[in-house]
Amino acid sequence: MSEAKPGPTELTPSPAAPAKPVGPSIAATRLDNGLDVVVIPDHRAPVVTHMLWYRNGSADDPIGKSGIAHFLEHLMFKGTKNHPAGEFSELIADLGGQENAFTSNDYTAYFQRLAKEHLRLCMDYEADRMSNLVLSDEVVAPERDVVLEERRMRTDSDPADLLNEAVQAALFTRHPYGTPVIGWAADIEGLGRADALAYYDRFYTPENAILIVAGDVEPQPTIDLARSVYGPIRARGATPKRGRVAEPDLQAHRLVTLADPKVEQPSYQTVFRVPSYRSGGPSEAEALEVLAHYLGGGQASLLFKSLVVDKKIAVSAGAYYAGTALDATRFYVYAVPAPGISLETLDGEIADLISEALKNGVSDADLARSKTRLVADATYAQDSQVALAQWYGASLATGLSLGDVAAWPERIEKVTAADLAKALRRLDRRGSVTGFLLPAPAA
Amino acid sequence: MSEAKPGPTELTPSPAAPAKPVGPSIAATRLDNGLDVVVIPDHRAPVVTHMLWYRNGSADDPIGKSGIAHFLEHLMFKGTKNHPAGEFSELIADLGGQENAFTSNDYTAYFQRLAKEHLRLCMDYEADRMSNLVLSDEVVAPERDVVLEERRMRTDSDPADLLNEAVQAALFTRHPYGTPVIGWAADIEGLGRADALAYYDRFYTPENAILIVAGDVEPQPTIDLARSVYGPIRARGATPKRGRVAEPDLQAHRLVTLADPKVEQPSYQTVFRVPSYRSGGPSEAEALEVLAHYLGGGQASLLFKSLVVDKKIAVSAGAYYAGTALDATRFYVYAVPAPGISLETLDGEIADLISEALKNGVSDADLARSKTRLVADATYAQDSQVALAQWYGASLATGLSLGDVAAWPERIEKVTAADLAKALRRLDRRGSVTGFLLPAPAA
Repeated sequence: MSEAKPGPTELTPSPAAPAKPVGPSIAATRLDNGLDVVVIPDHRAPVVTHMLWYRNGSADDPIGKSGIAHFLEHLMFKGTKNHPAGEFSELIADLGGQENAFTSNDYTAYFQRLAKEHLRLCMDYEADRMSNLVLSDEVVAPERDVVLEERRMRTDSDPADLLNEAVQAALFTRHPYGTPVIGWAADIEGLGRADALAYYDRFYTPENAILIVAGDVEPQPTIDLARSVYGPIRARGATPKRGRVAEPDLQAHRLVTLADPKVEQPSYQTVFRVPSYRSGGPSEAEALEVLAHYLGGGQASLLFKSLVVDKKIAVSAGAYYAGTALDATRFYVYAVPAPGISLETLDGEIADLISEALKNGVSDADLARSKTRLVADATYAQDSQVALAQWYGASLATGLSLGDVAAWPERIEKVTAADLAKALRRLDRRGSVTGFLLPAPAA
Repeated sequence: MSEAKPGPTELTPSPAAPAKPVGPSIAATRLDNGLDVVVIPDHRAPVVTHMLWYRNGSADDPIGKSGIAHFLEHLMFKGTKNHPAGEFSELIADLGGQENAFTSNDYTAYFQRLAKEHLRLCMDYEADRMSNLVLSDEVVAPERDVVLEERRMRTDSDPADLLNEAVQAALFTRHPYGTPVIGWAADIEGLGRADALAYYDRFYTPENAILIVAGDVEPQPTIDLARSVYGPIRARGATPKRGRVAEPDLQAHRLVTLADPKVEQPSYQTVFRVPSYRSGGPSEAEALEVLAHYLGGGQASLLFKSLVVDKKIAVSAGAYYAGTALDATRFYVYAVPAPGISLETLDGEIADLISEALKNGVSDADLARSKTRLVADATYAQDSQVALAQWYGASLATGLSLGDVAAWPERIEKVTAADLAKALRRLDRRGSVTGFLLPAPAA
């Protein structure tokens, strides 16, 4: 029920990426009704992670209906023809399991984790709500108020989140990545039962979904089980279309400033619009991933060493590439200034660092170190069953193949100094958006 | 064939507004097929101005089809079932007349001015192309290239225009006023015959049009003539719907900067999103109109006197309210710095002036002077037959009535100091967009 936001939550290290197969190899198939099934065996504990991913997210919200993907995620917990609202969630809790759901720009996913003997139960309930959701006005209207309240509490009362929304809207002036996942308040207010039903009918189909089962299971029996539970769901004949408006190539820099009495710590970000793993040419996304690590991945990175350690003008600094996206995406550079340092100073220093990196190039040793650390970090992160399932789900839901995911370490290793220089040229101030979050005296 | 752009062309005084009826009073009727007909007698010269206004502009372009309103305006000159391309234009030129057409955010208009005895001829041709347009691929594809070239020549090679596009896209992050009238290049490239035809069929109907005839004519015979020529056009049964996405209320200031070697003179603008005559509450638009005059209408205005005359930090300065719009619109404050003065300095001084005006209020004498001058300027401007016809056409096409237009001077006179203070509070830096156009050393 949480919402994967494009803003601050992305300012964290990249999700886990697989380096080498863990244990038995991954098995995958597509059922006759179009449902993709992926099984990732992991026998370290007798638990299973069951995730159903739909290839639709907030960027697929119809124009003027922003927030509908996220709203429907809420409504998916409101009961079906066969089960009343809350029954599935209570059962999981009673069995000592966990559940969650999240909506992002490009996908919506439902997640349960529990003892392996309950896998079938998970599948039964999840398959049931793919076709049997009941949406009455009595349920839809109050839940819309819940979402509006969620927006008021989380976004409208949080200056950092409001700034992030304005930064994203500036970076993506037409493309729906500029619209917050939760939606604009005026749009949410207009969402009703008919919108939710139309959206559900359009996107909640087997052809549009990916089932990921990770955990203490064997591939073939799990695929057989998935076929028996999900297989009877009627195919629609095609995957739903995802049409998005193209983003114009604006050549002006935009500085978005929000000053508010609630802000205690100023902060800085610049966001560049760059290709994603899906939309980029050969090696482009991989080079941006390496570049983010080189520039701002941890305390050995260029930004951290220069701004925090050497010049002491920042208390933190980093970079992050949000590469797992269907369309052109975001590359963030961010920092928190040391006391007494203005955001303008920080901005100038960061721009200089990027210019110098472009002029001087990146040494072979630094390139090799970044690639090695990046792959090692990913290998470490994929030790988590959930993180691994998420990496596969998010990749497949944004148009990548299992092969793409499996080959990721080799593709990273192949990044050259020339690729990195090309990626650095993508960090062009023209066309980028800078965000300043500042304290303000109370009115 | 020109295009009314939301950017620099709006940085000029407001179009003429009528003060008192000029000569015989204006006559208006609605034909049975829905066409509105307005006759504005003006017997000073034996000429007539014939304008057909459609209540659709670039803000009604379907999502992903930006530029279609303007593109269709071009195609309207490409011939009909009854007349080959160019015949109408040649005839007007042969008769010593003038013609033009323009597309704006909210309307598209076709205009001819010629000796009064040719009025019927104008009507015949204009009525003909409301229903008989012929669009072949042979005409559509090359004309799309003409528009793309127009965009390259006028916008993409002009830093000021590129900045204006980025400023508008920042001010209207979702609402279509943020999309340029000519369209984004990627969208224009995708426009084809089917798009043009669908658009024509949707909007080029008598219910959606307003005929304005100004000049040396008598009301009743002109209405009779219009009925005989335009009356036979088939009604569609309803005015086309104009659905536009709501603009979220972003609370962050955005500074858009474009630096380019082609820029010789830096310039400054700040744009506020404010109510229009149509969307505003009682007196809101009128107060904004008076405020624009008080702040920046001519050399007696606050901005000019303070920045240009007293402080000598600007060589020009002004303000402009683009009130004739269907939805929330723009209030501009702009200036050109004196040599050696930074745009940051200018920005700070302008922000201080606005704050002080809000704190100190506007004196009764200044308020009275602004209102008197505003109405006088409008009266003077309406001495032009074309300007008067344009004012009526633009007002009706953006949802105002003839009564609204006629009562404009009284409504301006009613603006109080309290209304003005409320208008000043609309010029809130939070939510506004500032544009900096700067020279840059050649790369």
